[in-house]
Amino acid sequence: MPKDTILLAYSGGLDTSVCVKWLQEKHNANVVTLTIDLGMVDMAPIRQRALDIGAADALTVDGREEFVKNYVFPALQAGAVYEEQYPLATALGRPLIAKYMVEAAHRVNAVAIAHGCTGKGNDQVRMDVSAGALDPNVKVIAPVREWGWNREEELEYAAAHGIEVPPSNSSYSTDENLWGRSIEAGELEDPWAEPPEDAYLWTKAIAETPDDPTYVEISFQGGIPTLIDGEEMGAVQLVEHLNDLAGRNGVGRIDHVENRLVGIKSREIYESPAGVVLHAAHKSLETLTLSKDQARMKTIVAQEYSDVVYNGLWFTAHRRDLTSYVASTQRHVTGDVRLRLHKGNCTVVGRKAPKGLYSHSLATYDRGDVFDHRASEGFISIYGLPVRTQAAQHPEDA
Amino acid sequence: MPKDTILLAYSGGLDTSVCVKWLQEKHNANVVTLTIDLGMVDMAPIRQRALDIGAADALTVDGREEFVKNYVFPALQAGAVYEEQYPLATALGRPLIAKYMVEAAHRVNAVAIAHGCTGKGNDQVRMDVSAGALDPNVKVIAPVREWGWNREEELEYAAAHGIEVPPSNSSYSTDENLWGRSIEAGELEDPWAEPPEDAYLWTKAIAETPDDPTYVEISFQGGIPTLIDGEEMGAVQLVEHLNDLAGRNGVGRIDHVENRLVGIKSREIYESPAGVVLHAAHKSLETLTLSKDQARMKTIVAQEYSDVVYNGLWFTAHRRDLTSYVASTQRHVTGDVRLRLHKGNCTVVGRKAPKGLYSHSLATYDRGDVFDHRASEGFISIYGLPVRTQAAQHPEDA
Amino acid sequence: MPKDTILLAYSGGLDTSVCVKWLQEKHNANVVTLTIDLGMVDMAPIRQRALDIGAADALTVDGREEFVKNYVFPALQAGAVYEEQYPLATALGRPLIAKYMVEAAHRVNAVAIAHGCTGKGNDQVRMDVSAGALDPNVKVIAPVREWGWNREEELEYAAAHGIEVPPSNSSYSTDENLWGRSIEAGELEDPWAEPPEDAYLWTKAIAETPDDPTYVEISFQGGIPTLIDGEEMGAVQLVEHLNDLAGRNGVGRIDHVENRLVGIKSREIYESPAGVVLHAAHKSLETLTLSKDQARMKTIVAQEYSDVVYNGLWFTAHRRDLTSYVASTQRHVTGDVRLRLHKGNCTVVGRKAPKGLYSHSLATYDRGDVFDHRASEGFISIYGLPVRTQAAQHPEDA
Amino acid sequence: MPKDTILLAYSGGLDTSVCVKWLQEKHNANVVTLTIDLGMVDMAPIRQRALDIGAADALTVDGREEFVKNYVFPALQAGAVYEEQYPLATALGRPLIAKYMVEAAHRVNAVAIAHGCTGKGNDQVRMDVSAGALDPNVKVIAPVREWGWNREEELEYAAAHGIEVPPSNSSYSTDENLWGRSIEAGELEDPWAEPPEDAYLWTKAIAETPDDPTYVEISFQGGIPTLIDGEEMGAVQLVEHLNDLAGRNGVGRIDHVENRLVGIKSREIYESPAGVVLHAAHKSLETLTLSKDQARMKTIVAQEYSDVVYNGLWFTAHRRDLTSYVASTQRHVTGDVRLRLHKGNCTVVGRKAPKGLYSHSLATYDRGDVFDHRASEGFISIYGLPVRTQAAQHPEDA
Repeated sequence: MPKDTILLAYSGGLDTSVCVKWLQEKHNANVVTLTIDLGMVDMAPIRQRALDIGAADALTVDGREEFVKNYVFPALQAGAVYEEQYPLATALGRPLIAKYMVEAAHRVNAVAIAHGCTGKGNDQVRMDVSAGALDPNVKVIAPVREWGWNREEELEYAAAHGIEVPPSNSSYSTDENLWGRSIEAGELEDPWAEPPEDAYLWTKAIAETPDDPTYVEISFQGGIPTLIDGEEMGAVQLVEHLNDLAGRNGVGRIDHVENRLVGIKSREIYESPAGVVLHAAHKSLETLTLSKDQARMKTIVAQEYSDVVYNGLWFTAHRRDLTSYVASTQRHVTGDVRLRLHKGNCTVVGRKAPKGLYSHSLATYDRGDVFDHRASEGFISIYGLPVRTQAAQHPEDA
Repeated sequence: MPKDTILLAYSGGLDTSVCVKWLQEKHNANVVTLTIDLGMVDMAPIRQRALDIGAADALTVDGREEFVKNYVFPALQAGAVYEEQYPLATALGRPLIAKYMVEAAHRVNAVAIAHGCTGKGNDQVRMDVSAGALDPNVKVIAPVREWGWNREEELEYAAAHGIEVPPSNSSYSTDENLWGRSIEAGELEDPWAEPPEDAYLWTKAIAETPDDPTYVEISFQGGIPTLIDGEEMGAVQLVEHLNDLAGRNGVGRIDHVENRLVGIKSREIYESPAGVVLHAAHKSLETLTLSKDQARMKTIVAQEYSDVVYNGLWFTAHRRDLTSYVASTQRHVTGDVRLRLHKGNCTVVGRKAPKGLYSHSLATYDRGDVFDHRASEGFISIYGLPVRTQAAQHPEDA
Repeated sequence: MPKDTILLAYSGGLDTSVCVKWLQEKHNANVVTLTIDLGMVDMAPIRQRALDIGAADALTVDGREEFVKNYVFPALQAGAVYEEQYPLATALGRPLIAKYMVEAAHRVNAVAIAHGCTGKGNDQVRMDVSAGALDPNVKVIAPVREWGWNREEELEYAAAHGIEVPPSNSSYSTDENLWGRSIEAGELEDPWAEPPEDAYLWTKAIAETPDDPTYVEISFQGGIPTLIDGEEMGAVQLVEHLNDLAGRNGVGRIDHVENRLVGIKSREIYESPAGVVLHAAHKSLETLTLSKDQARMKTIVAQEYSDVVYNGLWFTAHRRDLTSYVASTQRHVTGDVRLRLHKGNCTVVGRKAPKGLYSHSLATYDRGDVFDHRASEGFISIYGLPVRTQAAQHPEDA
Repeated sequence: MPKDTILLAYSGGLDTSVCVKWLQEKHNANVVTLTIDLGMVDMAPIRQRALDIGAADALTVDGREEFVKNYVFPALQAGAVYEEQYPLATALGRPLIAKYMVEAAHRVNAVAIAHGCTGKGNDQVRMDVSAGALDPNVKVIAPVREWGWNREEELEYAAAHGIEVPPSNSSYSTDENLWGRSIEAGELEDPWAEPPEDAYLWTKAIAETPDDPTYVEISFQGGIPTLIDGEEMGAVQLVEHLNDLAGRNGVGRIDHVENRLVGIKSREIYESPAGVVLHAAHKSLETLTLSKDQARMKTIVAQEYSDVVYNGLWFTAHRRDLTSYVASTQRHVTGDVRLRLHKGNCTVVGRKAPKGLYSHSLATYDRGDVFDHRASEGFISIYGLPVRTQAAQHPEDA
């Protein structure tokens, strides 16, 4: 009888390398690996390593374009920033990884998919729930969650099975894709301690940034960034460009104690230069293009949307509903935003929208003023009526 | 028959100076002025000017302590930042000014109160509605809204009545109190144009700030800041100290196109060094001390609370209800926050709370880990159940 | 020089009849009337009356189909019930009336449109704001608001101008269209007094309803009712049929003290037999077809949507955004609902949805149970973790 | 060595009776039972049965007063109705039961507490999480969840251990306390089938109710019901009285497909005569006493509050915060409500509040009208300004 096949999401790190062997032994299965590039991945050596360890096959997919277009930009339009801090880089990547995994699993007739997530993080939930949404019958194996080893035991197993331990260049646990980098564990677990400079890779320390500001102009069409300084750019290139530009000016560091999905608080460091710049620009453009009522509602939807993404619920009708709402709000979010990147600051210094709702002739205190000042008395009289009614009944409350 | 008395809120500027004469002439009344210090006010010369122009009496009140304790700090606890940008300095001051006005009007038997607000701003609404809430029968006169003059006509009237025009040091329209400074009009009315450096008074340009960071430690008790770097400070002094410290490091500039209460969009520049620092510190401390559910709800309340303040509804049962909610959330918001002020950046680098909800032994990936990893499987199975159910019924949606 | 034309929304009642003359006299204009049928309108005599009084022309339009399809059913899908009581009949009709008015005004080259709304109701706002949304330059005249007469003065004017006073069959002020009837004023202004039986026209008193229940089955496709008891019905006919069926069983009476748009509270009586039945049925079907998360969010959107409609903001981007959200939620709201109409009660007794989310095999306590009971322990352990953490830190709070 | 003691929440039914023996055998422990009366419990025979089966001791507590005062009435003030349908009877009882259990467990030095909840319901979560909130170290045993028997196996065990099977008078699974009765399982699991009449015990079928209506007047003080028809009643007596009065008129039946906490949908029947009447009355009184803004916010809080209660999160800081908000809103919810109970209908026919916000002189269309109609023009001009601005920029959207 031929062996079953298990498809493993493979990053090339120690955990998933050990998973290859563990799955083969424990499940007496062929292990096929799938490595997915959402940015920052050097495919060839990772693929080779999988084969070296014994994978039956080592598949790869370049998901960068799909990631930015179908996951990152919709979240940008939604203003999705978890707990007002985290632009959701890893959280947005997981459902796409799950999608590639489920598709590939069907292709290679895998009996199960496997991933290297631990038992106390968010990513296990995002992977398992997303996979289940795409194929309610899929079987998911999470060896790291199952084996329960500490680091010493894992290293022992690696040594015993001839798995080379990759030289770790950091004492942190990290994850990265085009939309950002997350850094946790080690010294960072003390939320009172300032993060050491070596936690950061993508962003310069303020002291090392240029003395002169960098100005950048971003043009949006329907809430999607399309031009940088007037130059058209593909989605992936645009994000890479801003990561570079902003990172060099020290923009994009986030230090946050966040509420995980599994009921604990965790101190997380993020680097998301493009994320910080694009969210600032997009939000500023919306101040010109959304009405007050739209802005109020969208803030509530943004909180819900960011929770949905963080909580692994991408493939749900609920996320789809929120997306429909957001899409409608973005119809007129078209215009340009000018930002100054300088010494860690990302400052919007100008915004314009050809069909925006800002009216100089209504706003000005100068000659051109067309606002009807006398209407204010009637407005205030009626606007304040319930307040006066309440005050008359409850003078003791004032 | 003795003349009626009108009580005028007097700032010493051109508008309210002209109001003194205009009220005397138009209403054939005695005008008593009231000047209120919520910070940044030099009382004596203003008082003298009122008398010089012909006020029957010129009253003053130092409202700084009450302002910070009863208006600013509750709004800080609420996380009240209008449209996620504006810490509400002027908006918080108006109801207190209205309160002093109504109280003094009763004291001097005034038949009406008067203020210098124009007909298209927020402040007229805040003043009129607040006054009406404190005395539903109060009569409010708003000469500037009523007379409808342009600047030339106003200057003409001033000249004709011997009212000296104060040397304006700016081409902007400004307002300030301890919690911040607002700057509008002039060049700022073009939201595409970067604000000129001369718009700012309290905050340094990045190029002029020190090269070395300033660290500051703020201690909170129940959501109220009480110590700076371990030193006890009165409320007013604490805010002044932070305005100075942060302003010198270029922290506290805000550039926002906001939705006014009267239906228009307006580009506003704000300086609120203490506001920016204290909100950042307070919010960071809450990440340790509020549960996820509390944080979600409080974000919604914060948006509502900031709208209520902005919209002139301070003296309402609704604001009181929100305040009760906020007060309950703050019971355990006690601890210390460490910030780095540097080149315009205000960065929280550490936070600790003796009775906070962050648990190192739950969060750590190190030896001390007490989190039950095996529980995750059961959790995910049930947590993901509705997603799988939906997916099974609507596979075409995935 | 030829006279200007003013287009008047004409109902045939005393107010708008007087408006015809008043507009002719006051504005020296030709008055063209437009009478719009949104249900319950007998066109011919109204048209004749307009001409008799002196209208230059008397236009009519049958808006019933458009009303139900494009205004009522979208609001039904949204679950739009103002303050959880009022199905928004009049509120949904006004924007459509404004639309017909603006279109006809352009057609007849009217210099202004006019309506008979008073100065303290909601409808003036809905009409003026809707008209302004469709044509920002439209001029709106509201004679009743302007003339400020009491009833005696109005009757005098009518008599002097030969305007016959229609025999009023009620001491109330009423409005009606297919979606409901509103009754206010007179005795109803005392919210402590039980509404007299003569306030109701469409619904039977309980004592006069049949002793046996009437069962009705409503089928929905994507949130739109399409079949009654298996029989296909056009939108207008379906609503009429349910108005009749439910009204005969005493279903559809609403007695509510509501918050008007202009700052006052008002006691309103409504009859909306079809509205009550369809909202109950639709909401019940959603319990099968929306996930918990969807249902939570939709409740918030429903409140916002109903406020938007009530507040005259139909023609706004904000309403459009909310509609996009709602449309997405309705994709799978397909199925049947069975109701019992009996002695004033409208009770859902059964609901089924072919692609719904209710799973008997998950819910049952019987043999077929497929729910994984053992997963609950893990779920509860993690779900309750933040509660235990908080309790451990603040035992005094429990 | 003396045996350990386990404290079992004991209802006298089959499940918890079997638990006594099972705990003794499986854990080799003394079992002490605790039976808690939250209404509808006949203590003496239950206590005797526990001892007969072999309980080491059988404790009882009368929790009715505390239940109504500290759990039911606060939820009434909050307007807490889960998914707009379920008044939360069982959900409100569980945390109080957990509280008595934890207290008694400490008193008798129990090593664990045990309850008879199954593994797929809400109550296991409410019990476990509430107990953990009151004593983070408490050990909870849930034999029914653990043993995994079907009904036959359980009956076998009972027979083998001489446990008499109580004559079940119904094919349903039920729970009841003063605030309501829940009925599930059996035929009810088909949401398309009308509930059989034998599912109901507290409420009459419409055909069996009196032909004449019953009027009842309920007086509230600060949101708490205190008088019925002018007569003062204790909290427990008041609820019992309304259960009887309303039940006899067929009021209080609820038929709902609800979203359980554990991710499934379940069809539930409830009877809550007093709950339906008191919520209707309370909400109606609030229409007079809360401002529009307060009402809007409170609706959002009510949804959150009901979720919190349903989800077993009573003993959390979050519920405490919401309670503080609600308490503030209730300060002026004082007045009388008159209801008609008739043939299954519970209709508010009158409400009055001495210090309410309804103003006849503002609302009336009659002579006494004090509303300033002319102010409306100014109000509408400014209120509609953003709509006109948006329309001018996006005419294609109208």
